[in-house]
Amino acid sequence: MKIGIAQINSNVGDFPRNAKRIMQAYRACIDAGAEIVVTPELSLVGYPPRDLVTKDRFVEKCLQALDYIADETGDVPLIVGYIDYHDFIHPGKPWRNAAAFLHKGRIKKKIWKTLLPSYDMFDEHKYFEPSAKCSTFSYNGKKIGITIGEDIWLEDYIRRPIYQRDPIAELKEDGVELILNISASPFHKGMPKHRASLLEVVACGANAPLVCCNAVGMNEQLVFDGNSLALDSDGNEISNLPGFKSCFKVVDVAKRGSDAPKIRSIDVEDVHNALVLGIQDYTRKAGFATVTLILNGNIESSLVAALAVRALGANQVKALIMPDEEQSSESICRAIEVAEKLGIEHKNVSVDVVKQSADLVMGEIIPNLDHPLVNQGITSRIRAMLLMAYARNNNYLILSSANKSDLAIGHQLLGGDSSHGLAVLSDVPKIIVHKLANYVNVRHEVIQRSIVEREEELSKKPHKYGKETAPPYVLLDLILELYVDYQLSCNDIINGHGYDENTVRWVQRKVDLNEWKRQQAAPGIRVTSKAFGMCRRMPTVQSFID
Amino acid sequence: MKIGIAQINSNVGDFPRNAKRIMQAYRACIDAGAEIVVTPELSLVGYPPRDLVTKDRFVEKCLQALDYIADETGDVPLIVGYIDYHDFIHPGKPWRNAAAFLHKGRIKKKIWKTLLPSYDMFDEHKYFEPSAKCSTFSYNGKKIGITIGEDIWLEDYIRRPIYQRDPIAELKEDGVELILNISASPFHKGMPKHRASLLEVVACGANAPLVCCNAVGMNEQLVFDGNSLALDSDGNEISNLPGFKSCFKVVDVAKRGSDAPKIRSIDVEDVHNALVLGIQDYTRKAGFATVTLILNGNIESSLVAALAVRALGANQVKALIMPDEEQSSESICRAIEVAEKLGIEHKNVSVDVVKQSADLVMGEIIPNLDHPLVNQGITSRIRAMLLMAYARNNNYLILSSANKSDLAIGHQLLGGDSSHGLAVLSDVPKIIVHKLANYVNVRHEVIQRSIVEREEELSKKPHKYGKETAPPYVLLDLILELYVDYQLSCNDIINGHGYDENTVRWVQRKVDLNEWKRQQAAPGIRVTSKAFGMCRRMPTVQSFID
Repeated sequence: MKIGIAQINSNVGDFPRNAKRIMQAYRACIDAGAEIVVTPELSLVGYPPRDLVTKDRFVEKCLQALDYIADETGDVPLIVGYIDYHDFIHPGKPWRNAAAFLHKGRIKKKIWKTLLPSYDMFDEHKYFEPSAKCSTFSYNGKKIGITIGEDIWLEDYIRRPIYQRDPIAELKEDGVELILNISASPFHKGMPKHRASLLEVVACGANAPLVCCNAVGMNEQLVFDGNSLALDSDGNEISNLPGFKSCFKVVDVAKRGSDAPKIRSIDVEDVHNALVLGIQDYTRKAGFATVTLILNGNIESSLVAALAVRALGANQVKALIMPDEEQSSESICRAIEVAEKLGIEHKNVSVDVVKQSADLVMGEIIPNLDHPLVNQGITSRIRAMLLMAYARNNNYLILSSANKSDLAIGHQLLGGDSSHGLAVLSDVPKIIVHKLANYVNVRHEVIQRSIVEREEELSKKPHKYGKETAPPYVLLDLILELYVDYQLSCNDIINGHGYDENTVRWVQRKVDLNEWKRQQAAPGIRVTSKAFGMCRRMPTVQSFID
Repeated sequence: MKIGIAQINSNVGDFPRNAKRIMQAYRACIDAGAEIVVTPELSLVGYPPRDLVTKDRFVEKCLQALDYIADETGDVPLIVGYIDYHDFIHPGKPWRNAAAFLHKGRIKKKIWKTLLPSYDMFDEHKYFEPSAKCSTFSYNGKKIGITIGEDIWLEDYIRRPIYQRDPIAELKEDGVELILNISASPFHKGMPKHRASLLEVVACGANAPLVCCNAVGMNEQLVFDGNSLALDSDGNEISNLPGFKSCFKVVDVAKRGSDAPKIRSIDVEDVHNALVLGIQDYTRKAGFATVTLILNGNIESSLVAALAVRALGANQVKALIMPDEEQSSESICRAIEVAEKLGIEHKNVSVDVVKQSADLVMGEIIPNLDHPLVNQGITSRIRAMLLMAYARNNNYLILSSANKSDLAIGHQLLGGDSSHGLAVLSDVPKIIVHKLANYVNVRHEVIQRSIVEREEELSKKPHKYGKETAPPYVLLDLILELYVDYQLSCNDIINGHGYDENTVRWVQRKVDLNEWKRQQAAPGIRVTSKAFGMCRRMPTVQSFID
């Protein structure tokens, strides 16, 4: 049986355009010989719809769109992800995360999602009622089991099993001969490989071929990486689809796969591609054509400019270079060099005159300037103010470039270096910033190699922020991973992992006290296993010290 | 039996201090003759702990604190809300929302919450496993049923029942003679009355006296209003505790209540008290003593100043008055008058010089100023920049004063009038701003009555923002309530409620397109049934038009 895998990029809540995308992919797959076509989880809705689901006519409109699509289907069935009502008789959540099997102009079968993830960025239990039973159905003499996202997800990633049910076991019991899974599984570093090995175990365990059609594109702060897969009943890979790209492929699941190890992309390449797709998608979906940013000669702003050019083309990226008297002429030269290498328009203007007049007024309000960061803050916010005016006047989206390490410890200024718009590197730790700079340089040396090398050296030393001294980034990033990503207690980081107590306590304090800043920062693009933003919902004000 | 109701204000994650608060209230209740003492839901933890629960040692530390409290209990039992582990054998969520019955130095009984709210601001299913069965236990020859929050909450507020279980029915079956409920039920306008009538129905239905101990204080964007209640088995009120105040009371549940209607506070008084408590608690819990704000003579900033003085005292409120050439001298005089009437320190400084130098630089970046709001934005952001420097230098918390109506339609500037800090009026619609101003004026005419009257007149006319004309606030607020609070579709608002199509469509577009702004705005204080922020999680970018 030949399965058309339509790895599409849906917009949240855009039923007409999502329907069009589904139908285009459906027809293309048929032309390529598909006998069944699958689309990703909630392909008609866009994942995650969040509270949109609770809007009065949302699900009604979704069902109308589904009817329209059903009407267009012919001899080749089409599987679409959508949202349905839970019945109106039994108690429970009002809606279902659903898949429809459409055939010859009709909705032949509806399947509900069984395992509803409610952790990290997921909130499905808020909205959806799980299915009561998973069963197969016959099509062309084959017992097919349709599953949605988490339904096939084994729980090796969590300390304890969180679900009472095992959909794959239920399908196996029911004699399943082919498992089709529609997913919206978001990317983080290492995820494509992890997902592939998990699917291998599932196919093998069910002793049935498995096709996983994963969504692609950025919605909210999540990038869906595609990387759809077809495996035979031994868990060997029959075929895979590319990452970070809308595309389709027709795969014969009667074939046997090969257990030769697949060459998967390296982590830094994935992170690069996720960020590029993120910039592209966020810009487009938010209705912008052009982005703007401040270039200041540092590695972060240079990297963001390079990623933006890759995502949108040099014509759609506009830079402001805004030196002040404290900035070295070297860094200004570097900023200009980056803009010129990338071929982007850049305006160069000094902010000194504004800073001087602000200082005058400041003198009246603050006779005794105590805080070391106040001055730096003023300059940074003058830049941001000009950038926001520039962006608004020209309808540009602002890209900000603070990295995850600095956001974690609050070394960024709200309304300053972390301006509103899209925070491209907000989930990229400093050390990965360096790796990305090197990766970008391979194609085209945008950031002088000597600069990157110097930065790498500097990241081995403590660095200053105002009067504070922060630990070297190489150390900071390791502690942050344990504290933020793995949520370990300080005692465990100190005693179990052997880090210096004072340093760990300093990091903890900074991370905890700056929650309010991060919650008011621009949305970012998730690329690690624990991003700030919708993936980590800490109380803004709290007093827990562990 | 005499029940001590300890209506306490817990800090999120602050086990040592929460334990201390619990023990102080426990001893005070015993001194007043209590035979059992109850504290609110998660009294030891602070509600809502959100992702803190997922931290490695969080629950361990909570259990340590519980042991410490248990050890201090004597002949009078104490009921404490805390978080426990789910067992380590069965699949399910890792934790429990729990109540402990402590007696004579030991934990005599543990009760799990059955109904876990997961809608609006609630996410309990993300963390907690529900109880399998609700049963009573005997103490002093009485069958007591301990319930937690939602367990006693009838579902008349939602279109369909969302739970399969009915804890009160289970307890009734088990012969319950006294229901103790520990709650963290957040305030919104009308809620205290609604909650009281709901409890009446529950007590009556179970035919048992009911004591509800509700939390008080602000955590995250929620104000818990207290208003704890004791009812007899006919649902008549035996006693109630005040709103918005930490306190305790000992109530004899053997007594019969009176069905005479209780005088409850009026809505605007409640909203006022919620905002005052919100300012007080947020400031204190975030570790500040003093707040600062911009006074510009408008009704919002004057109101916020008045509320802040009520919350913290005049000495702890510092105002900046920062006129520019476009501002009328009348509004400056009004600002000064308000500051003087309130007796707060105020600094008066013109921002013209900074604006002029910014204009110079702007001319270089933006040769053609197209957007009507760019200029206004610059001035507003200069003010905010100076305010932020002032606040940072002196360690003041910033209060911002944009109202809900303006936030809804995006008529606020990020990093400008909606600065970082606490957005006091972010859930107060314009029309309620007027009511609050009148309410505040009753005690002390802070805002000239003629100004409020003129504003009330103006709110009946369309108003300008940049080049845009917005509908009159009296109309806007009604449409916003239908669209945001009730989530009605535009068609229903137009056809079902008879509003003008163009106006409704304009409001919809503005609300939807400005989601990104609200998500980066300062946290607010919830006072309506649907607040922006953690209570309404719309996708930042989406395309649904209904």
